[in-house]
Amino acid sequence: MSAITTYLEENKPRQLEELIEWLRMPSISTLSEHKADMLAAAEWLGARMREAGLEHVEVIPTEGNPLVYVDWLHAGADKPTVLVYGHYDVQPVDPLDEWETPPFEPDIRNENIYARGAADDKGQVYIHVKAVEALLQSEGALPVNVKFIVEGEEEAGSGALTAFVPANRDKLAANVCLISDSHILAPDQPSILYGLRGMWKGELTVTGPATDLHSGSYGGAIHNANQALAELLAALHDADGHITVPGFYDNVRPLSDEERAALAKVPYGEKELLEESGAPAAWGEPEYTIVERTGARPTLEINGMWGGFTGEGFKTVIPSKAHAKISCRLVPDQDPQRIGRLIEAYLQELAPPTITVALESTQGARPFIAPLDLPEMKAAAKAYAQVFGNEPVYTREGGSIPIVTVFQQALGAPVILMGFGLPDDRLHAPNEKFHIPNFYKGIQTSIAFMEEL
Amino acid sequence: MSAITTYLEENKPRQLEELIEWLRMPSISTLSEHKADMLAAAEWLGARMREAGLEHVEVIPTEGNPLVYVDWLHAGADKPTVLVYGHYDVQPVDPLDEWETPPFEPDIRNENIYARGAADDKGQVYIHVKAVEALLQSEGALPVNVKFIVEGEEEAGSGALTAFVPANRDKLAANVCLISDSHILAPDQPSILYGLRGMWKGELTVTGPATDLHSGSYGGAIHNANQALAELLAALHDADGHITVPGFYDNVRPLSDEERAALAKVPYGEKELLEESGAPAAWGEPEYTIVERTGARPTLEINGMWGGFTGEGFKTVIPSKAHAKISCRLVPDQDPQRIGRLIEAYLQELAPPTITVALESTQGARPFIAPLDLPEMKAAAKAYAQVFGNEPVYTREGGSIPIVTVFQQALGAPVILMGFGLPDDRLHAPNEKFHIPNFYKGIQTSIAFMEEL
Repeated sequence: MSAITTYLEENKPRQLEELIEWLRMPSISTLSEHKADMLAAAEWLGARMREAGLEHVEVIPTEGNPLVYVDWLHAGADKPTVLVYGHYDVQPVDPLDEWETPPFEPDIRNENIYARGAADDKGQVYIHVKAVEALLQSEGALPVNVKFIVEGEEEAGSGALTAFVPANRDKLAANVCLISDSHILAPDQPSILYGLRGMWKGELTVTGPATDLHSGSYGGAIHNANQALAELLAALHDADGHITVPGFYDNVRPLSDEERAALAKVPYGEKELLEESGAPAAWGEPEYTIVERTGARPTLEINGMWGGFTGEGFKTVIPSKAHAKISCRLVPDQDPQRIGRLIEAYLQELAPPTITVALESTQGARPFIAPLDLPEMKAAAKAYAQVFGNEPVYTREGGSIPIVTVFQQALGAPVILMGFGLPDDRLHAPNEKFHIPNFYKGIQTSIAFMEEL
Repeated sequence: MSAITTYLEENKPRQLEELIEWLRMPSISTLSEHKADMLAAAEWLGARMREAGLEHVEVIPTEGNPLVYVDWLHAGADKPTVLVYGHYDVQPVDPLDEWETPPFEPDIRNENIYARGAADDKGQVYIHVKAVEALLQSEGALPVNVKFIVEGEEEAGSGALTAFVPANRDKLAANVCLISDSHILAPDQPSILYGLRGMWKGELTVTGPATDLHSGSYGGAIHNANQALAELLAALHDADGHITVPGFYDNVRPLSDEERAALAKVPYGEKELLEESGAPAAWGEPEYTIVERTGARPTLEINGMWGGFTGEGFKTVIPSKAHAKISCRLVPDQDPQRIGRLIEAYLQELAPPTITVALESTQGARPFIAPLDLPEMKAAAKAYAQVFGNEPVYTREGGSIPIVTVFQQALGAPVILMGFGLPDDRLHAPNEKFHIPNFYKGIQTSIAFMEEL
């Protein structure tokens, strides 16, 4: 066995224990009460980077949560530089009562580690920290120059990093960006993600009467804000799942026959979808396959909805206001700002005179697509094949990693999305998990990728 | 001035102070944490009844909240017996931040007293306590026999009293039931309510996938439970505000020309509706007037609706479940149980294969209508005219007082709905109020009614 193989084998338990320690930190970026947890999670990562042998570690304060920047640039100017990106913030945990074990008390069951952030993204970014550690500790050097930039606001819009990247082009300059914040198809079927959907988000408020009213006194003559909201939301899709907002599909790049053929090779369909989700039936645009619907087509989702009396018992009110949190997954070449304007115009057009509607758009993300013939893409494919024993397939993903297009535009470097999660990791949902064998294979794949570059 | 007029004038401040003390008690029956407040509010009332000169006072424990029973039966067997009903429980107070002053710190502004329960129903039931007190303290006797039954579960389904009334027919036997839990049209325009809508309530749950899912991974191929709920709810009315549930209107007694003519005399229309509610436009069945829509037509309201992520920030989930609290106001001769079955059947029929729906119906209330030519109705009209200086008009109300039909059926006595609230009292909503001059005029009207019988 080589020195590095021995090192990896001997250090497996410690590597996992460290990850568990990090997962105990409730670094939820969208909830302001977790401010102190964010700093703690960032400083914990910086400390582990130093222990790994990376001497230059910065925890950079921002207006939001701190950034962790690290570099090791001793491979020589003739060697490429890899910029590894990840995030230490996690999603909120509700509904809390659906977790089998508490979200911040990591629990190991059936080769999986269950915790909020296990796969998204602490477990995945930590793979590269441990890959670099193994190389430095067993061989004393890395085959390439390496930089890390790890943020704490990915689940909250990446505000600080979005400003930092273009303002620090020299500091972050790299030949390739490496991001592990996605999944492969199955434990033995690696896949490379070459397309990501973009995102638009907004909060819709419908206002009817000035205050909540008694349904006995006013029912029948006042448009109930909950009902009006339901009517608006129901009008946003047709019966076949197409989005009805005029102009919504205008800039959608049609899927080529070649791309549809490539996507048809992905061994995932209705059967897998229903098994993973527990839904009674598939839904959506009938003229597209499941893989196309979830990866290559735009969507509009009602992520949250509330209005009127939602407590214990009954209260026969006509609510004054009703609310919905709406988001769209976008595909090339849709523009999030334009989509927000189209949705608002359509809602205003639909709104009857009995109510008023207001839509507050938040920061969006552009969709991403990468050429399949990049040398860095081929290096990633070789690394996966070497460790997993199977050639990767190429997929497009429905998720959005808004920072991807920021890196692409500011640094001019290709972005490789090298995921190690699995499709059933329950990101953003109760009982999020990460498959432990993928953690260890990920470390080996990261090492192989650096060696292949 | 007569002894009673002098007594009423001298005791005005104390009567109001007592009411304020009662309104400070947060007797919210639908929230289990207020259990102790319910008993305190019942015992407080019992103590004031004794002070008023009513010797026979019982605070009767039940499986729910206690009933307060009181009687004074010394008028003689040849005199009629009046059974006064009211309730000491109040509605929840959310949204709390919309109250100008705290709901349980009664505040007097512009001749109104602002507090939860001020009009519904503590202020109104207390009118009759003070009327009896004035008669007993100034004249030593009442012109009729009087019984009181005051419950603490009107806002929570009247469970205990609904069982108590038929089981205690002799104890509650009366010639007329008198209920003040409604409103007149304006401070100088008394009105008599001769029809009440009934009620059906149910909670709808839509279930899509087994757990919340990441919209990036599954969006486009899974039916979002919020969206599915919105689609179902939107399908329950047509564009003109008619309810689309098949069979819903089957047993609705058509409005006669005579009744429509009587209702047309009510000086209330779109202008008043919009002023009171602050809604931008009226809504509902165009072939009926505002008074008919709110009083004589059945309704279906979405009182509460929730699903997915409703907290601070964004969470791009596809929710597993979405919920709605739905209620119907019913008119003669609709049956609440049948209506619940029709709604459930329609929802099941509408539900696509991508979701499942479950509807849990709760206890309903039958609609009520009283003949206009009853002698007791005429006595009420005379009492109003005497105190307010204007003949009352006859109205049908949209609200439901479920116990009305229980009294009617179990006791065989006519029910007189003698309200003293006003249409803008904001029952069940923030800033509930009671018009203080109506409190004092109510006491005089109650005395006049007992004398007229």
